[in-house]
Amino acid sequence: MTLQPTAVPVRQFLDWPVVTNPAEWEADVAILGIPRSEPYPRDPQPNDQARAPDAIRSHSSRFCYASGNWDFDTGTDLTSVLPSRHLDLGNAAWSGGSYDEYAASVTGYVRQLWRQRAQVVLLGGDHGVTIPVLDALDALGEPVHVLQIDAHLDWREEVDGVRRGYSSPLRWASTTPAVAGMTQVGLRAVGSARRGEVDAARAYGSHLVTAERFHLEGRDAVLATIPEGRAVYLTIDADGLDPAEMPAVMAPTPGGLRFHQVAPLLRAVARRHRVVGMDLVEVAPSFDAANGVTCVTAGRLILNVLAASWGPDGGCW
Amino acid sequence: MTLQPTAVPVRQFLDWPVVTNPAEWEADVAILGIPRSEPYPRDPQPNDQARAPDAIRSHSSRFCYASGNWDFDTGTDLTSVLPSRHLDLGNAAWSGGSYDEYAASVTGYVRQLWRQRAQVVLLGGDHGVTIPVLDALDALGEPVHVLQIDAHLDWREEVDGVRRGYSSPLRWASTTPAVAGMTQVGLRAVGSARRGEVDAARAYGSHLVTAERFHLEGRDAVLATIPEGRAVYLTIDADGLDPAEMPAVMAPTPGGLRFHQVAPLLRAVARRHRVVGMDLVEVAPSFDAANGVTCVTAGRLILNVLAASWGPDGGCW
Amino acid sequence: MTLQPTAVPVRQFLDWPVVTNPAEWEADVAILGIPRSEPYPRDPQPNDQARAPDAIRSHSSRFCYASGNWDFDTGTDLTSVLPSRHLDLGNAAWSGGSYDEYAASVTGYVRQLWRQRAQVVLLGGDHGVTIPVLDALDALGEPVHVLQIDAHLDWREEVDGVRRGYSSPLRWASTTPAVAGMTQVGLRAVGSARRGEVDAARAYGSHLVTAERFHLEGRDAVLATIPEGRAVYLTIDADGLDPAEMPAVMAPTPGGLRFHQVAPLLRAVARRHRVVGMDLVEVAPSFDAANGVTCVTAGRLILNVLAASWGPDGGCW
Amino acid sequence: MTLQPTAVPVRQFLDWPVVTNPAEWEADVAILGIPRSEPYPRDPQPNDQARAPDAIRSHSSRFCYASGNWDFDTGTDLTSVLPSRHLDLGNAAWSGGSYDEYAASVTGYVRQLWRQRAQVVLLGGDHGVTIPVLDALDALGEPVHVLQIDAHLDWREEVDGVRRGYSSPLRWASTTPAVAGMTQVGLRAVGSARRGEVDAARAYGSHLVTAERFHLEGRDAVLATIPEGRAVYLTIDADGLDPAEMPAVMAPTPGGLRFHQVAPLLRAVARRHRVVGMDLVEVAPSFDAANGVTCVTAGRLILNVLAASWGPDGGCW
Amino acid sequence: MTLQPTAVPVRQFLDWPVVTNPAEWEADVAILGIPRSEPYPRDPQPNDQARAPDAIRSHSSRFCYASGNWDFDTGTDLTSVLPSRHLDLGNAAWSGGSYDEYAASVTGYVRQLWRQRAQVVLLGGDHGVTIPVLDALDALGEPVHVLQIDAHLDWREEVDGVRRGYSSPLRWASTTPAVAGMTQVGLRAVGSARRGEVDAARAYGSHLVTAERFHLEGRDAVLATIPEGRAVYLTIDADGLDPAEMPAVMAPTPGGLRFHQVAPLLRAVARRHRVVGMDLVEVAPSFDAANGVTCVTAGRLILNVLAASWGPDGGCW
Amino acid sequence: MTLQPTAVPVRQFLDWPVVTNPAEWEADVAILGIPRSEPYPRDPQPNDQARAPDAIRSHSSRFCYASGNWDFDTGTDLTSVLPSRHLDLGNAAWSGGSYDEYAASVTGYVRQLWRQRAQVVLLGGDHGVTIPVLDALDALGEPVHVLQIDAHLDWREEVDGVRRGYSSPLRWASTTPAVAGMTQVGLRAVGSARRGEVDAARAYGSHLVTAERFHLEGRDAVLATIPEGRAVYLTIDADGLDPAEMPAVMAPTPGGLRFHQVAPLLRAVARRHRVVGMDLVEVAPSFDAANGVTCVTAGRLILNVLAASWGPDGGCW
Repeated sequence: MTLQPTAVPVRQFLDWPVVTNPAEWEADVAILGIPRSEPYPRDPQPNDQARAPDAIRSHSSRFCYASGNWDFDTGTDLTSVLPSRHLDLGNAAWSGGSYDEYAASVTGYVRQLWRQRAQVVLLGGDHGVTIPVLDALDALGEPVHVLQIDAHLDWREEVDGVRRGYSSPLRWASTTPAVAGMTQVGLRAVGSARRGEVDAARAYGSHLVTAERFHLEGRDAVLATIPEGRAVYLTIDADGLDPAEMPAVMAPTPGGLRFHQVAPLLRAVARRHRVVGMDLVEVAPSFDAANGVTCVTAGRLILNVLAASWGPDGGCW
Repeated sequence: MTLQPTAVPVRQFLDWPVVTNPAEWEADVAILGIPRSEPYPRDPQPNDQARAPDAIRSHSSRFCYASGNWDFDTGTDLTSVLPSRHLDLGNAAWSGGSYDEYAASVTGYVRQLWRQRAQVVLLGGDHGVTIPVLDALDALGEPVHVLQIDAHLDWREEVDGVRRGYSSPLRWASTTPAVAGMTQVGLRAVGSARRGEVDAARAYGSHLVTAERFHLEGRDAVLATIPEGRAVYLTIDADGLDPAEMPAVMAPTPGGLRFHQVAPLLRAVARRHRVVGMDLVEVAPSFDAANGVTCVTAGRLILNVLAASWGPDGGCW
Repeated sequence: MTLQPTAVPVRQFLDWPVVTNPAEWEADVAILGIPRSEPYPRDPQPNDQARAPDAIRSHSSRFCYASGNWDFDTGTDLTSVLPSRHLDLGNAAWSGGSYDEYAASVTGYVRQLWRQRAQVVLLGGDHGVTIPVLDALDALGEPVHVLQIDAHLDWREEVDGVRRGYSSPLRWASTTPAVAGMTQVGLRAVGSARRGEVDAARAYGSHLVTAERFHLEGRDAVLATIPEGRAVYLTIDADGLDPAEMPAVMAPTPGGLRFHQVAPLLRAVARRHRVVGMDLVEVAPSFDAANGVTCVTAGRLILNVLAASWGPDGGCW
Repeated sequence: MTLQPTAVPVRQFLDWPVVTNPAEWEADVAILGIPRSEPYPRDPQPNDQARAPDAIRSHSSRFCYASGNWDFDTGTDLTSVLPSRHLDLGNAAWSGGSYDEYAASVTGYVRQLWRQRAQVVLLGGDHGVTIPVLDALDALGEPVHVLQIDAHLDWREEVDGVRRGYSSPLRWASTTPAVAGMTQVGLRAVGSARRGEVDAARAYGSHLVTAERFHLEGRDAVLATIPEGRAVYLTIDADGLDPAEMPAVMAPTPGGLRFHQVAPLLRAVARRHRVVGMDLVEVAPSFDAANGVTCVTAGRLILNVLAASWGPDGGCW
Repeated sequence: MTLQPTAVPVRQFLDWPVVTNPAEWEADVAILGIPRSEPYPRDPQPNDQARAPDAIRSHSSRFCYASGNWDFDTGTDLTSVLPSRHLDLGNAAWSGGSYDEYAASVTGYVRQLWRQRAQVVLLGGDHGVTIPVLDALDALGEPVHVLQIDAHLDWREEVDGVRRGYSSPLRWASTTPAVAGMTQVGLRAVGSARRGEVDAARAYGSHLVTAERFHLEGRDAVLATIPEGRAVYLTIDADGLDPAEMPAVMAPTPGGLRFHQVAPLLRAVARRHRVVGMDLVEVAPSFDAANGVTCVTAGRLILNVLAASWGPDGGCW
Repeated sequence: MTLQPTAVPVRQFLDWPVVTNPAEWEADVAILGIPRSEPYPRDPQPNDQARAPDAIRSHSSRFCYASGNWDFDTGTDLTSVLPSRHLDLGNAAWSGGSYDEYAASVTGYVRQLWRQRAQVVLLGGDHGVTIPVLDALDALGEPVHVLQIDAHLDWREEVDGVRRGYSSPLRWASTTPAVAGMTQVGLRAVGSARRGEVDAARAYGSHLVTAERFHLEGRDAVLATIPEGRAVYLTIDADGLDPAEMPAVMAPTPGGLRFHQVAPLLRAVARRHRVVGMDLVEVAPSFDAANGVTCVTAGRLILNVLAASWGPDGGCW
C-alpha cells in the first residue's frame, strides 16, 4: 500500500516543519492529526471533534509562548531537549472511500513512523481514532502497555454494529497482540459500559483506577501498574480531566482529574518508560470558552510528555 | 386537605414513570419538583431557579447514559439496586392563590410520601423550597438530622418581612420539632447572615463546617457530627459546590466544595444512615454553560445518594 | 510635583467614601485603580485590563453582600475590624502626555499614602502597573519583601524596548532599593521568560515556588521565605490562580493555584507581617463569564487580606 | 373521553388566571402550551422546543410591561379590549402512554374551547403540535383558512414513517375536512420538501408566497388570498421570521420576514377575519440570546393578534 | 457654583484631546460621559448603562479606523470637516452627595459649553441623563426642538416618587421653557406609558411617529415636524433601533428602526438645522455581543451627526 | 510548475466528490478553500478567517438539507441543474516556504480550472485571497468584470509594505490586464481607504455604490454597470452584508446589505452573465453565534449563484 500525502494543517504545531509526503518523513518526533474514526450509523458526518487537530494547533503560541523559552512545568526549555528531527505531518485525510481504507492508511502512517522509532503524537478526533493506531503497534516489535486517561471504560465490543467507534478503543487494545497490559485512570459516572464490559476488562487484567481512587492515592498507584522497562502508549481523552479544566467535551463529567495531578503523572511515566506514542482525543472546539482553555490545556499536556520524554532523564533518550 | 394533581414535567427523570395523581402514589423512592418558595416583596415573579426541575430532568441521559449501565462512582448499576417502585411525581404547581396554600400542598405531598416511608428527592427552586418540606418531617415519627451543603448560613429569621424565603431554611429547621440537630458544610464568604445569626446557630448547636475546614479535614469531621442510627435529611444548595464546577448559581462564591469531595461524603452518609429525603436547590439554568455542566453535576449528586442508599450496605435497605 | 485629582469611579469599592483630591487624602486603608502601564509599541491603546478597576468595583455587592455581615472566610465582619479612615481614591487617570508623567503621578499618589502609613490596595490594569508602585516604596523607610502570585516570572529587562511593561515588574523590583527580597508563587508553563531570566532571578535570590510545588508543599514553604518582622508587598496576577476559578485573563494556564489555597496563605501573611500594600492585576473583564466569577474572586482575595491585616491579630494593628 | 387536567406552567401568561381543570374552562380567549408532537424515531426525547411554552411565558413582563399600559403597535391597551374571560390553561402534558392518546387529549382540549367559540392561542413545541389542533377544527362547524408564516413548506406525507411530525402539518391540513384553503408565507431555501411536495401543494391550491415575493409585494398579496368572511387559523413558525430577529430556532434561514412586516399583516388579518386560533411554534430557548429577544418577539406577535382581534374593528368582536 | 473636574476616561473618544478641567474648556465640539441619572429606589446602585461611556470610547478604532480616512456614510473625512477645537471632557462623576448636586454639576458643565456655542455630545447612562442636560438649554438663548429616537414615550411624571429617572425625560422636556416642540420617532410595543401619558404628549403637541409609520413613510414625515431654522437637540435611545442591530439594551423590542434609515435622517436634520447637542443613551455593555456591534453602531450614529453638522452644507457651519 | 495536491477538507461541500490531485481535476464547477493571504508583518500567523473554509463546509446540511430537495430561493432543485462534474478540491495548503510560492500555486490551480472553463468557487480566508485568483484570469482569454460586495473599498496600494493583503484586492484588480471594469457595492463607514484611494478608484472608473444608495435604488443600478455579454467575477466579503445577518466578521459595520437584497442581485447577475468564478471571504468562525448563522448565510449565497448560473436561463449554460 502506497500512502497518499496527508492534508496540510491550517497552521503548524508550534514551529515545527510541516511535511505531508510520507516518502519524506524522517523524524524522531512527529505529530499527526486524525480527524475521523469509524462513524456510527446515526451520525455519518464528521463530528465536532474532527476540527480539533487544527483548533489545537491554532493555539500553539498560547500554550507555548516560544519554544525556546523556559517551561516551569518541566524545568527546561523544549528547544534544548527536543530532537532536531521533529515534524508536523498534517492531518490524515478522508476524502471518500470506505472507512477500512482510511483506517488502513492511518495504520500505515504510524507503522512507518514506528519503524523509524519515532515518538508519535496523534490529535483526534473522537476516541475511535486510537484503533487504527493500535493496529500499527506491531511495527515496534516489542510489547507495549497502554495507559488511558478517561472518564469512560471504552470496552464495548460494538455499538449499533460498529466495532471501531469511540466506545471501543480499549476493548480493541485488549485483542491487539502487541498490547501487553493496560491501565485505565479517571473512571467515573455512567457511560456506555455495562456490567459485562466491566467484568471483561477485569478478566483481561486491566488496571481500573477510578477518578476517586486517583484523588485519594495519587500517581504512585498508577505507576505501579506498569512493568519496569515496558514501552508505553498513552491515550488521553479530554473528558478524563475535570470539565472545569477542559470544558469543551461532549460528555462533561464531574469529579475528573486535575491538570496538576495529570501533568506530573505523565512526566513520571515519560521518564521511567519509553513513551512510544500518545493520542489526545475528544476535544470539541465548538464548546470551548472564549479563551480557548481546553485547547491550551491539551497543548500543555502534550508538551509535558515531550519534554519529559526527551530530557536527560527521559525514557526516549 | 385533598391534594391536587401535580404538573407533568416536560420529560421524566431518567426513565421513571410519571404519576401526578397523589391518590396513585405508591413509591419507595420518589422525585418531585418544587419550583417556588415564598417570594420576597421586591421579586414577586418566579425566579430563574423555578425552571431548574425541568432543566435538570432534561439532562437525564447526560448524567446517566442508561440506568442499567455501570456507575463507576458507586460501583454498581442503578437498576439493580433501586427499588422497583420509583416514581417521578412531576412538579408542585402554583397556579394562583396564596403562598400559604401552596406551601401546605407541598407539605401534604411530602407527608403522604413519608407516611409510606418513601425516600423523597426534591428539585428546587430556590432554597426557600426546603421549608414546607421540613414541615412534613412530623410524618416520619422519628428525629431527623439535617445535613446542609451550602456556602451560606441561611439562618435569617426574616428578610423584608418574609420568614420562609431562601435566606431562612436552616433557621426554620431549628424550630421544627422533628429536627434533632444539624450540620452545615461549605460556609464561606459573606452572605445575608450577620453576627447575630451566627451566634444563634451556634447557640442552637448547629455544627458549622466552613469550606476551608472541610478542605483541610475532609468528610470524617462531618460524619462525626451525625449521631449513629439517626435518620438524615440532606439539603444541597448548588452554591455549596465551587462555581468552577456548578457555575449556574445566583451567588458564585470561590473556595467551594468539589464534587470529588462531596460525592463520597454523600455516599458515606447514605450508607451509615437512612436518608429520608434530599433536596437540590438554587440551580439557575439561564447561567449554565453551553454544555449544561451544572445540571449534569446536580444529577450526579442525586444518583450518588440514590445508589448508596439502596445498595446492599445502604441506609435505606 | 503637585498631584492632579484622580478619576471618579463609576461606583465606589464596597461602601467606601470616594475622595479624588489628593490634598484630602487621610487614610489608614485606601484603594486606587491604575488602569494603564507602559504600553508595548504594537499595542498602544489601553487593553481590556484597563477596564478592570471599575468592573471589580461594580461587583462589590456580590463579593460582599454587606460589609457589616459575617465573613466565614475570615471569621469576623469587615466593619468591626477595618479602620474608620478607609477611602476609595478613584482611578489614576492618563489623559494624554507621556507615560513618564503618568507613572510619576502614580508613584506620587502611593508615596503620599505610604507616608501616612496607609495600607494601599491597587487595582490594575496589566502587571506593568506594579512598577510605579514599587518606585514609591522608598516612602516607607523600611525594607520590604515582595510576594507575587503569578503563573509567570515577569523578569524581562525589556520587551521591544519597553522596560516597564507587563513582562518586567519583578525584574524592576530586583533593582528597587527598598525591596529586600522576593517570593514568586504559582510559576508554570511557558511565558516570556527565557533561561537567562530564570538564572537572573535565582542569582538575585528570588524564592521561586512553582505551582506544582505549592500543590505539594502548601503554604508553609512560602511563609518560610519571608523574614520575620519584614513588611510585605503583595502583587497578585489573576493568572496565578487556575483559569477554572479566574477565567477572565489573557493567558489562561492550567495547573494554577486554587482560591482555597491562596486565601489562607494571604491571611497568614497578613497576620504575621505588615502588608503595606497589594495589587490585583490582569483581570480582563470582556472574558468574564456571565456570572462575573473572576471579578467576584478578585474581590474576595482583597477582602481576605484586609480583614486579616486589621483583625486583632493582624499585621497592621 | 374525559380530559385530564393540564400541567400548571411555571408562571402565567401576562397576568391571566391559570385554570388547569378542563371542567372549569369558560373562556373567550385561552392560551395553552403544547410541548410535544409525534417524535421521529431518531429523536425520541422531548426536543429543546418543548421548553418554549414556559420560556415565552417567563418573558411576559418584557413583551408587555403592564397589560393596562399603552401599546403603540396596536394603538390601544390590551386590558380595555380583551374580553374579561381570558385564561391560561397551562400545558398539555404527556406523562407516558402513546402519542395517539396524547394527541387525542390535545384535540379534545381545543375542541372543547372551540365549542365555546373561544379564540385559542397555542404555544409549541415544534411544528408537529399543529396537527392535533387541526383535528379539532370540526368543532367550529365552519370552513377555515389556514395562514402559515414559515420558511418551510411542511408538506411531507411522512418522514421515517411518522406522519404527524414537524415536517407534515400543512399536508395534514390539506386533508382536514374543515380546512377550506391555505396560504403559506415566508418560503425560502431548502428544507425537507422535494419537488413532489411542492407540486402537491400547488395541486391542492395552496397559495405559496416566498419570502422574496413578500419582500417585494407586501401584505396585500397575502390578504387577497383569503376569502372575505372566512374564519382563519394562524400557524407561525418562528423560523418564518428572519434569524436576525428570532435567532433561537433550529433552522436559521437568511432572507426571512421582518417583524415590522409580519405584525401589520397579522393585525390586518385579525381585523378582516375572525381568527379562531393561532399557534406559535419552533422557538428553541437554549439558543436565545442573553436578552431573550426571540421569546420577546414571540410574545409581541401574539399580542398584536389579540389586540387586533378584540379591538372595536376586530374580527372577534 | 464652581464645577469640579470630570473623571478622565479609560481612553479618549477617537483621537480627541482629553481635558477634564472645566476652566480649560474651549471647544466647538465636545463629548462628555454622564454615567448616571436619578436612581429609582429599588435600584440604588449604578446600572449596567453606567459603563457605556467608556465602552463606546474603547471601540473608537472599530467605528472609525482613522479619523482622516474616508467615510462613505458621509462622503467626506471627519478630519477635514471637524473644527479644530474638539475635546473629550471625560465623564461627569458622582462620588457621593445627593443626586441634586450631581445633576446641578451636569447642568453646569453643559451650560458652560453652550455659552461657548459648542456642539455637545453626551454619552449615557440611562435615559434619565437627558434631564439635567435639558436644564442647561436656557444657556442657548433660543428655542430648541427635541428630536427623540426611542421605542418608548418616556412621559411619566414620576415613577416610585422619582421625577428625573429614565421614564421621564420627554415629560421633563415638555416643561422646559427652552423647548419649543418635540418629535418622538420609533414608538412601539408597551412600555411604562399609560393612556394618560399618551394623551398628555398629544395634548402638548408632541409629534408621535411610531416605528411602523416610519417604516412606511420614511424620514420626510419626521423632517416636516421641525420648524425651519429651529435649533435641534437629539436624544437617541439605543432601543429605538432594532435589537437585531443594537442588541445590548435592557428592553429589546422588535420592529425597531434600522441604521440605514436613521443615519440619513440624522444627517438630514444636521444639515438643515443647527444640532446644538445630542445624547446617546441606554447602551448596556454587558449584553453586547462578542464583536461589540452595539457600541460600534453607537459610534457610527454619532459620527454621522458630527460630519453632517460640520460639513460645508452643515447646520453648525 | 507542477501543482502539489491540496489539503483534504474535514468534510466535503454538500455531497460533492473530493479530489485533491490536480492531475485528476475535470470539472464544470469546482470549490476550493484558500485559507491564507499575504500576511501583514504584525500578524504573521493564520488569522481566524483561515478556518472558514472547513467551517462553512461543516454547515452544508444546514444551508442545504438535501441537494435534491426544492430550493425556494431559486425555484428549482440543485441536483437537476448542476452539471454532473462538480468537485470539491479541498484547501490550497501553505506548509512552509514563501508566500510567493503559495500564491503561485493558488494561481496555478485556478488557471488550470479556468482553462477547463470550470466555474470556480473560492472560500477564504481574508480578502487578500482574491489576489492570486485575479492573477489567474488571463487563462480565460476574455475580459472580465469584477463585482464586489463589501463594506470597504480595498484599494490600498500597500499597508506596512505588503501589497497583496486584505486591504488591496480591488486595487490589484485595477492593474490586472484581464479585468475590464469593476463595480463595488455596499460601501459604508470608515475603513483603511483614504481620500486618495477613493480618488484612484473613481479615476479608474470603478462604479462605487454605497450601501445607502443600494438601499434606495436597489439592484438595477448595479446591474446597469456591467456591460452586456461580459463575463463576471464575484468577490463577496461577508462584511458587505449587515452584521445582523452575518455577525461573524472582524469589522462589523452597521447599515449593510440584506440577504433578501443580495441573493436576487446575485441571481440576476448569474442569469445575465457568465459568472466565471466567485469568492466568499472574511467569515471569522470564532465569532459566529451558537446557531452558525454566518456560515449558513455564506452557503446560501453560494447556492443562489450556482443554481442561477446553471439553470435553464443561466449564464453558464
